[in-house]
Amino acid sequence: MRRSERIVRLTKTLLEQPHRLLSLTEMAEKLESAKSSLSEDLAIIRDVLLKEGSGSLETQAGAAGGVKYVPGMPKQQSADFLMEMSRLLTDPDRILPGGYLYISDVLGRPDVLDRAGKIFADLFSASAVQYVLTVETKGIPLAISTARYLHVPTVVVRRDHRVTEGSAVSINYVSGSKRIQTMSLSRRSLPEQSRVLIVDDFMKAGGTAKAMIDMMKEFRADVVGVGVFMATSEPAEKMLKDYVSLLTLAEVDEVSKEIRVVPSNITK
Amino acid sequence: MRRSERIVRLTKTLLEQPHRLLSLTEMAEKLESAKSSLSEDLAIIRDVLLKEGSGSLETQAGAAGGVKYVPGMPKQQSADFLMEMSRLLTDPDRILPGGYLYISDVLGRPDVLDRAGKIFADLFSASAVQYVLTVETKGIPLAISTARYLHVPTVVVRRDHRVTEGSAVSINYVSGSKRIQTMSLSRRSLPEQSRVLIVDDFMKAGGTAKAMIDMMKEFRADVVGVGVFMATSEPAEKMLKDYVSLLTLAEVDEVSKEIRVVPSNITK
Repeated sequence: MRRSERIVRLTKTLLEQPHRLLSLTEMAEKLESAKSSLSEDLAIIRDVLLKEGSGSLETQAGAAGGVKYVPGMPKQQSADFLMEMSRLLTDPDRILPGGYLYISDVLGRPDVLDRAGKIFADLFSASAVQYVLTVETKGIPLAISTARYLHVPTVVVRRDHRVTEGSAVSINYVSGSKRIQTMSLSRRSLPEQSRVLIVDDFMKAGGTAKAMIDMMKEFRADVVGVGVFMATSEPAEKMLKDYVSLLTLAEVDEVSKEIRVVPSNITK
Repeated sequence: MRRSERIVRLTKTLLEQPHRLLSLTEMAEKLESAKSSLSEDLAIIRDVLLKEGSGSLETQAGAAGGVKYVPGMPKQQSADFLMEMSRLLTDPDRILPGGYLYISDVLGRPDVLDRAGKIFADLFSASAVQYVLTVETKGIPLAISTARYLHVPTVVVRRDHRVTEGSAVSINYVSGSKRIQTMSLSRRSLPEQSRVLIVDDFMKAGGTAKAMIDMMKEFRADVVGVGVFMATSEPAEKMLKDYVSLLTLAEVDEVSKEIRVVPSNITK
């Protein structure tokens, strides 16, 4: 096989399977190439990723060894993306009755999900995440996108406790709208003692995220982080301290039609 | 820039943006290369995709011209994937009370979503899909994954008509459980006369899918197809004729613990 063709195949194989350890021996066989030439190709790919700041290749030595593509997001690209989002989301037409902000369309766009998911995957790439957890409905797309880049399953907490998937854990909590709500998760959907990353679209006081953290105690899980697309600046005192939000909603004024969205300074 | 490095970058750029027309001029500038060498590189990438059966590169000539990666799924890989799913889903432990089958965990796995989404994107790649439509909750992950490969937004119909995102269209329908249910979609989430692909996880009589099709009439949309992960063999007469299901659930017997899942013969 020609080197150029081999490089296309290698790049494709790696990019399509982020965070998955791929066996060098298997790849060498599939590409009908010597491991030594493979190593040279991988060095070129690693080089490009490093130069771009768009991730890295991690190599594991030994018989069971292999190589893993760890996706990353170049800092400038993250900053540009969040700036673009801030501008987009300050359109006065987005103000909903009650001072809410319409963001579902944005969180349905593949390019937005891809970039936001990659940022979260990058931020938590060293946390050995085993599951991404979210609660229905609006957080699901971003959770799926994040989980894709981390190569872990997504688990969706339901708001409807009538859902029958065997025995379930249900908890009551108070959400941003001050109503008492229920969320539930079937036992079988998450093994005990898993390492879990919580992802959601929006956070106000943090009641929903806090409820997910509480629920995780019932599963003896380790919550390694909480990531939300957007958090409000008020109340400043949230029900949880440790979370990352990509954007801060500083103001929505229904009367003056003023919206202020501040991009976060994302650092690992 | 060395050719091998250029090929890595090109492959990466294309794979990360399926179904997006990328300008050759911009790429040539970014890679500091002549368009002619770029064309040679693209020919190599196209060749690999063709050989693997994993998609194609479509070129558009002219000043506004460019190149687009159209992802595809090799036939054998589709067949293997569906066979693997059939085996996995016939585990007697998956039988839920009422003769339902537990599949949420599978539809939360990134590798499953990736392959199923790619199959749908492949099947409908020539349908000029503008939006993927689904209804909460379990269909969302697959819809997101399909939409990623088609590079179009996902729109989620809500089951809760209290959702306030401006004026909405609500319709009542009878679901598989024979209950009368409501689904609603805000006007602003989907422009009129869009070309829509409906994606869902499961279909029994087709009541939910039929309701989405009816709702699309209210948006004067063109439903170009319906794709579900799994459909039951009974009732054989569904409420809609035109749909693609990846798997057929032929039997779930709560007493004998027998499950039969038949992979579909996917052809364009």
